Amino acid sequence: MYSQIPTIFSEKISPEAREKIAQCKDFVERYCIPADKIYLEQISPDREKRWKEVPEIIGKLKIEARKRGLWNMFLSNKYSEGAGYTNLEYGCMAEHLGRSIVAPSVTNNNAPDTGNMEILARYGTKSQKEKWLNPLLDGAIRSAFLMTEKGTSSSNALNISCSAKLNSRGKYVINGVKWFASGSGDPNCAVWLVMCKTDSSKSTPYANHTVLLIDSKRALASGKAKLVRPLTVFGYDEAPHGHCEIVFEDYEVTDADNSEIILHKLGGGFEVIQSRLGPGRIHHCMRTIGVAEQALLTVAHRANNRLIFGTRMSERESFKTAYSQYKIDVEKCRILVLNAAHTIDVKGPKGAMREIAMAKIEVPRKVLQILDWCIQMFGAEGVSQDTPLARAYAETRTLRIADGPDEAHLGQLARNNAKDFPKIEKYFEELEQSRLDVAKL
Amino acid sequence: MYSQIPTIFSEKISPEAREKIAQCKDFVERYCIPADKIYLEQISPDREKRWKEVPEIIGKLKIEARKRGLWNMFLSNKYSEGAGYTNLEYGCMAEHLGRSIVAPSVTNNNAPDTGNMEILARYGTKSQKEKWLNPLLDGAIRSAFLMTEKGTSSSNALNISCSAKLNSRGKYVINGVKWFASGSGDPNCAVWLVMCKTDSSKSTPYANHTVLLIDSKRALASGKAKLVRPLTVFGYDEAPHGHCEIVFEDYEVTDADNSEIILHKLGGGFEVIQSRLGPGRIHHCMRTIGVAEQALLTVAHRANNRLIFGTRMSERESFKTAYSQYKIDVEKCRILVLNAAHTIDVKGPKGAMREIAMAKIEVPRKVLQILDWCIQMFGAEGVSQDTPLARAYAETRTLRIADGPDEAHLGQLARNNAKDFPKIEKYFEELEQSRLDVAKL
Amino acid sequence: MYSQIPTIFSEKISPEAREKIAQCKDFVERYCIPADKIYLEQISPDREKRWKEVPEIIGKLKIEARKRGLWNMFLSNKYSEGAGYTNLEYGCMAEHLGRSIVAPSVTNNNAPDTGNMEILARYGTKSQKEKWLNPLLDGAIRSAFLMTEKGTSSSNALNISCSAKLNSRGKYVINGVKWFASGSGDPNCAVWLVMCKTDSSKSTPYANHTVLLIDSKRALASGKAKLVRPLTVFGYDEAPHGHCEIVFEDYEVTDADNSEIILHKLGGGFEVIQSRLGPGRIHHCMRTIGVAEQALLTVAHRANNRLIFGTRMSERESFKTAYSQYKIDVEKCRILVLNAAHTIDVKGPKGAMREIAMAKIEVPRKVLQILDWCIQMFGAEGVSQDTPLARAYAETRTLRIADGPDEAHLGQLARNNAKDFPKIEKYFEELEQSRLDVAKL
Amino acid sequence: MYSQIPTIFSEKISPEAREKIAQCKDFVERYCIPADKIYLEQISPDREKRWKEVPEIIGKLKIEARKRGLWNMFLSNKYSEGAGYTNLEYGCMAEHLGRSIVAPSVTNNNAPDTGNMEILARYGTKSQKEKWLNPLLDGAIRSAFLMTEKGTSSSNALNISCSAKLNSRGKYVINGVKWFASGSGDPNCAVWLVMCKTDSSKSTPYANHTVLLIDSKRALASGKAKLVRPLTVFGYDEAPHGHCEIVFEDYEVTDADNSEIILHKLGGGFEVIQSRLGPGRIHHCMRTIGVAEQALLTVAHRANNRLIFGTRMSERESFKTAYSQYKIDVEKCRILVLNAAHTIDVKGPKGAMREIAMAKIEVPRKVLQILDWCIQMFGAEGVSQDTPLARAYAETRTLRIADGPDEAHLGQLARNNAKDFPKIEKYFEELEQSRLDVAKL
Repeated sequence: MYSQIPTIFSEKISPEAREKIAQCKDFVERYCIPADKIYLEQISPDREKRWKEVPEIIGKLKIEARKRGLWNMFLSNKYSEGAGYTNLEYGCMAEHLGRSIVAPSVTNNNAPDTGNMEILARYGTKSQKEKWLNPLLDGAIRSAFLMTEKGTSSSNALNISCSAKLNSRGKYVINGVKWFASGSGDPNCAVWLVMCKTDSSKSTPYANHTVLLIDSKRALASGKAKLVRPLTVFGYDEAPHGHCEIVFEDYEVTDADNSEIILHKLGGGFEVIQSRLGPGRIHHCMRTIGVAEQALLTVAHRANNRLIFGTRMSERESFKTAYSQYKIDVEKCRILVLNAAHTIDVKGPKGAMREIAMAKIEVPRKVLQILDWCIQMFGAEGVSQDTPLARAYAETRTLRIADGPDEAHLGQLARNNAKDFPKIEKYFEELEQSRLDVAKL
Repeated sequence: MYSQIPTIFSEKISPEAREKIAQCKDFVERYCIPADKIYLEQISPDREKRWKEVPEIIGKLKIEARKRGLWNMFLSNKYSEGAGYTNLEYGCMAEHLGRSIVAPSVTNNNAPDTGNMEILARYGTKSQKEKWLNPLLDGAIRSAFLMTEKGTSSSNALNISCSAKLNSRGKYVINGVKWFASGSGDPNCAVWLVMCKTDSSKSTPYANHTVLLIDSKRALASGKAKLVRPLTVFGYDEAPHGHCEIVFEDYEVTDADNSEIILHKLGGGFEVIQSRLGPGRIHHCMRTIGVAEQALLTVAHRANNRLIFGTRMSERESFKTAYSQYKIDVEKCRILVLNAAHTIDVKGPKGAMREIAMAKIEVPRKVLQILDWCIQMFGAEGVSQDTPLARAYAETRTLRIADGPDEAHLGQLARNNAKDFPKIEKYFEELEQSRLDVAKL
Repeated sequence: MYSQIPTIFSEKISPEAREKIAQCKDFVERYCIPADKIYLEQISPDREKRWKEVPEIIGKLKIEARKRGLWNMFLSNKYSEGAGYTNLEYGCMAEHLGRSIVAPSVTNNNAPDTGNMEILARYGTKSQKEKWLNPLLDGAIRSAFLMTEKGTSSSNALNISCSAKLNSRGKYVINGVKWFASGSGDPNCAVWLVMCKTDSSKSTPYANHTVLLIDSKRALASGKAKLVRPLTVFGYDEAPHGHCEIVFEDYEVTDADNSEIILHKLGGGFEVIQSRLGPGRIHHCMRTIGVAEQALLTVAHRANNRLIFGTRMSERESFKTAYSQYKIDVEKCRILVLNAAHTIDVKGPKGAMREIAMAKIEVPRKVLQILDWCIQMFGAEGVSQDTPLARAYAETRTLRIADGPDEAHLGQLARNNAKDFPKIEKYFEELEQSRLDVAKL
Repeated sequence: MYSQIPTIFSEKISPEAREKIAQCKDFVERYCIPADKIYLEQISPDREKRWKEVPEIIGKLKIEARKRGLWNMFLSNKYSEGAGYTNLEYGCMAEHLGRSIVAPSVTNNNAPDTGNMEILARYGTKSQKEKWLNPLLDGAIRSAFLMTEKGTSSSNALNISCSAKLNSRGKYVINGVKWFASGSGDPNCAVWLVMCKTDSSKSTPYANHTVLLIDSKRALASGKAKLVRPLTVFGYDEAPHGHCEIVFEDYEVTDADNSEIILHKLGGGFEVIQSRLGPGRIHHCMRTIGVAEQALLTVAHRANNRLIFGTRMSERESFKTAYSQYKIDVEKCRILVLNAAHTIDVKGPKGAMREIAMAKIEVPRKVLQILDWCIQMFGAEGVSQDTPLARAYAETRTLRIADGPDEAHLGQLARNNAKDFPKIEKYFEELEQSRLDVAKL
């Protein structure tokens, strides 16, 4: 019933990973999806309380997940802390995690922590790892990456203007307004990774930024950093995690040595954010495919139980045909993403730039169409809290914007493709010559 | 700057209406759109309070609107209480009203009250009009139409099963679960128009239903009718109006004579709901066009002030081209709806069935595409509370479902078109004969 | 069965025109459509002969058409030679003409002669009219407009480089390569209207071109102008009319005084071509709508007579739904074009620039989708000579290119829309002020 | 410049095949594409002669192709006569072959011969192979498969009604009208594989048909089988191969024993046609991808050399963005088809039914969009004989119909998907139980 992994990708998956994928599927189906409704009900409707505590079902499922070894699967075999899976293998797990709201959290594979853990594993000093990576891997704390800024075009990260300047005491003082910092509203969020402009004099503009590791609890306690408000996504505040607006007004980082707070190196911000992106985009895409598959299951269930003018909806030609077209669409997306995942495994994120961009552009766009159809098949119920569809639509919609809008990625591909144009001219010159040669045969 | 009324439609508009449209535009631009943000801020974030009071800006603007004679324009010249405008004329006003969240309310042209007032004007007894129509026309109370039922396919109204049966005391007793009753959460909602099954024995199934006028405050006070919860639209609860689920458990209507609560006549439910639909759909469509135009203005403003890699967004070819395509799309929608409006004016809602259906199917679908693009142009801000776009998307999305999903309307057109098929066969028979005749020329 | 003229447009049509439209419909249905197959069969399969003679059915139907007064209806009431119809009225006739391959020819409403006759009527001297306009109006000769040039972007007519220079004898000598000159292959083609560059020194580049009236038979006889070949359209040569490539090599125009060959005035080329375009585009669009309607009739006939797995195709839900969606699409197109036609009638082609552009961009695009679906419904037969569909597709496809590609028209609208951007900024400034004012209410 | 084989598929290709793919690419680029224009010019414009001889460039290139061992690569390693490549490997070659009109012919990988050779290799007797397979493999003769019938819905092959009945002499007598028999117009076509109804009494309707091997030259010489006419595809007759209509009127097959003419076995027709289909569809799809890639190269060349209002077309944002989107689309198609090819390699055509159907439905549809855009970028030239685009469009268009229209394939997938619906109900029952379990955690 649930789609299989396409043959050629399946062949690349180790027996251990195959087993883990199956476990993951089982856990998601028997624990996580059933828990989603409980989770939503346990979020307090009170506007203050909903940000103070994480629903207790999360803690309970974390225990179940760890019991089964379903923990931190995202961290690839490139890292010593990694679970040892390839991006392709984890991709197949991520698809199942995407089918449930709670699954990524309860298995500690939730964004943005996953990306944050990856760069901490890659660039963190021993001390930074102890302080932040270990508790993150343990699920004890959460984290946020403060990138996007109010009033700035985020498709060009050079625009990032939140400043961190050394004061006379040799401490960094931060000023700026970040927003859409996912997860920053979480009561357990303990660390912010903040992309700051630490310089403006470098000959290459890509050397002016640095990612700083900020103890968020202390920063907020200082009164110089403020969680202004959660931004909503189509009306959802996504408590208790949220996407917050955070203002720094002369916040001086005094609680740690500068070497503790600089991730990688001074001026290394671009390197850090670039290495963060590739696999994370693939994880998002794979989860999104899980969203689509689960939505299609939900709508098939609806159609099986709904009469339209005396005929079961699932027996109507128009329904069956549309359903099948969408199943094709999901499969096309899956192949596209798994292809990108494998390319990362073989060639690294840089070598897979084109494949990642294609997946990032295509998958959310197509899944949104599918979700829209599913909503339509549910009628009014589809836009309401009684199905997971509208919420899924809203979250998926952000994927066309987050990490750079579609347009930015397509623009990047366009610039790369344009590099081929002179070669194409050369080819057509050769073609003219070949025409002469062939005419003489 | 703002689109003009297409010439041929403009020619049909009386000078008085033209003047009123201009006043309407001015009022919307100078009072309503500026008030939208204030309105949203005045809605209490507290989950209880937000349903208890209507933001005070509404009251203030009502005064301004009445001062300008911008009140109840929707009620066509078919009714003695009507403002005297044709559907075409009011359509042009409705477009402007649609540009603002508050404009329909503050001019007393808000759904579902408009449709409810229309049927009260058409079918109400003198006493019913005094009790309900007059305060509605006066803006003193609001109303809800309880149609859709949980678990029932609403594309076929014959499925409506909420029962109203006479008990031994000769009183109606209502049982059933209605939901998505728009406006039913409003603190001023005083009357429910409830589509009930009052019989099941009629030879024609279309004679078994009746619309009952229920005093909602009394019903709720009885404890036998309950506002269970507001349904959300994406993540919006649309307080203070809401779309509620309402349960009737043996609610006995004792506060009025049966003749007071039956609208039109026993078994006349289908007649009532059918007459309610045509113009209302056109009003929705016109407001939706206003939504699209305002969104395009908003996005042009964004583009004028946003640099993408050093170039103003509004100067980029891709932006300008897309913007112009969407302006075309809006204009096509406008022509389609105004054509339907005029057809209603000339041939009545029945004679305009096809035109109304076309508008109903096409307009929200296209406007959603436009809004989606506008959201994309705003990036993360577009999905948030900082622009009106996501909220507008959510509301517009419901129009593809409310009053019957697109599929139902297209299916209805399909059945009508199929009636032509035998005539088409006849035409092709004649064509064969003509071929013989022409060959002999 | 056949779609009615939408109400609001119907109201603008005079009783005489209404009668003529009905006659036109009848003639097309009983004479022209039945004759289409005969026409195609009468075109010689021999590659030379097919260009030498016009199928005789054309002559026979011309007699029938004139007998019924169905002749030159295109020439609007702006001209003394005109038939006296508005663009809206003729538009409704053109729709019917478009349903048949031969109908435009046999009623003397065929492009490019219609546009050529219009500019001759508008700009021609008495002598030019006698020589060329009268026989064209009489259907005795045909004409071609030589505009597009090989290797030149035609979306910017300033690029036109075919030169006409006065030699020492005071005669014009023409050099250049024109192509896609529709109708230039016709055995009765007697006059070419050639857009030439007669100067290059004018301060405004729009004053360097002139339209010359060239006696094509004499030009060809000279050997200095050559019909190189017909260009094909998806494999169709469209004999006997064709779209030819024509080369001028030092062709000296000696057969007439210069005043006889200059249309309008020296340097007046741009004025001539601009006045030629508006109504012609609308005629094309209306005929295209007729193409779509006739294709839908044809496919309904097919569906009525085709069993798919035991069910009549016309009874399948997917067929009926798609058919109805396409009927909506045709109606949307019709309204769009009639709106443009009426705007021309009221405001002239310049005042209707936006409406014309919208129709020009939207209609062929949509009709191509409809034709593609019709082809698909016919299976292999649909791409073959056994239905009119593939041929109609090919011809309609050229409309997205002829008279400027969609992109050029959309680009023009985009430039116009961009002129609004500063006004939009002003509006948003006022909005800020209004927000302050409203907050004080 | 030319797209690479995606990593995961590349890994599955043997070094020998990789080498052959490179040779194939080189040969296509240096010989075949340059020869295409020559080929088209060598087809006689005379309506009779164009069917009498194959342009001589074909013969010359065949020599070059064989010299390089580029011959019969299509025949997979399943057959002793096969070139030893997997479907995946040959797929990568087929993509390059698709870039040129002549490449499939000159390497003896042209449809329908490929499919015909495959079934002869699989089902042919030794004698049948000697008579037909060997000369086909040698490129000495060509063949046609006579399947589709006039007036019959080909999406259900049970409708095939062309009858072959034993007469009193024990000989088969054939009656019926086949059409769209690709390749049947070729002067070298020597054998027809004819799907006939040989029985009508079998309990299973799938056992009534048989594929007969008919010596086409003898059949035509008898006068009882006639090549009525070539069907056109849009306006192309595709001489000298053609898609002909063939009528059998009491044609008695006397030139061979019945055992010689029955392929596989009496009543084995369905088995034969089903085994014929899978890989052939993949070959078509891969060639189509080559068509798209070559078209994109052609359009990039155009854009590099075309000024639009002073800017090189290839530097315009809209061009570059569209180009890149289409490059994504091609890559998505490629992955989809290669995935299907590999699935055939591993699981056989039956096991790959879903993957094949997806590719068959998606690829031509998408490539048509790409070609349409390329045509548009060329303006009028795009629809003419001066680019390969319109011809490519016409041919690709038939792929949405040939071997069953998209709708039939999607319908088949829909029926298969519907088999999952009861399982989905079961899953939702289990989900309810899991919800109870999880609530108790």
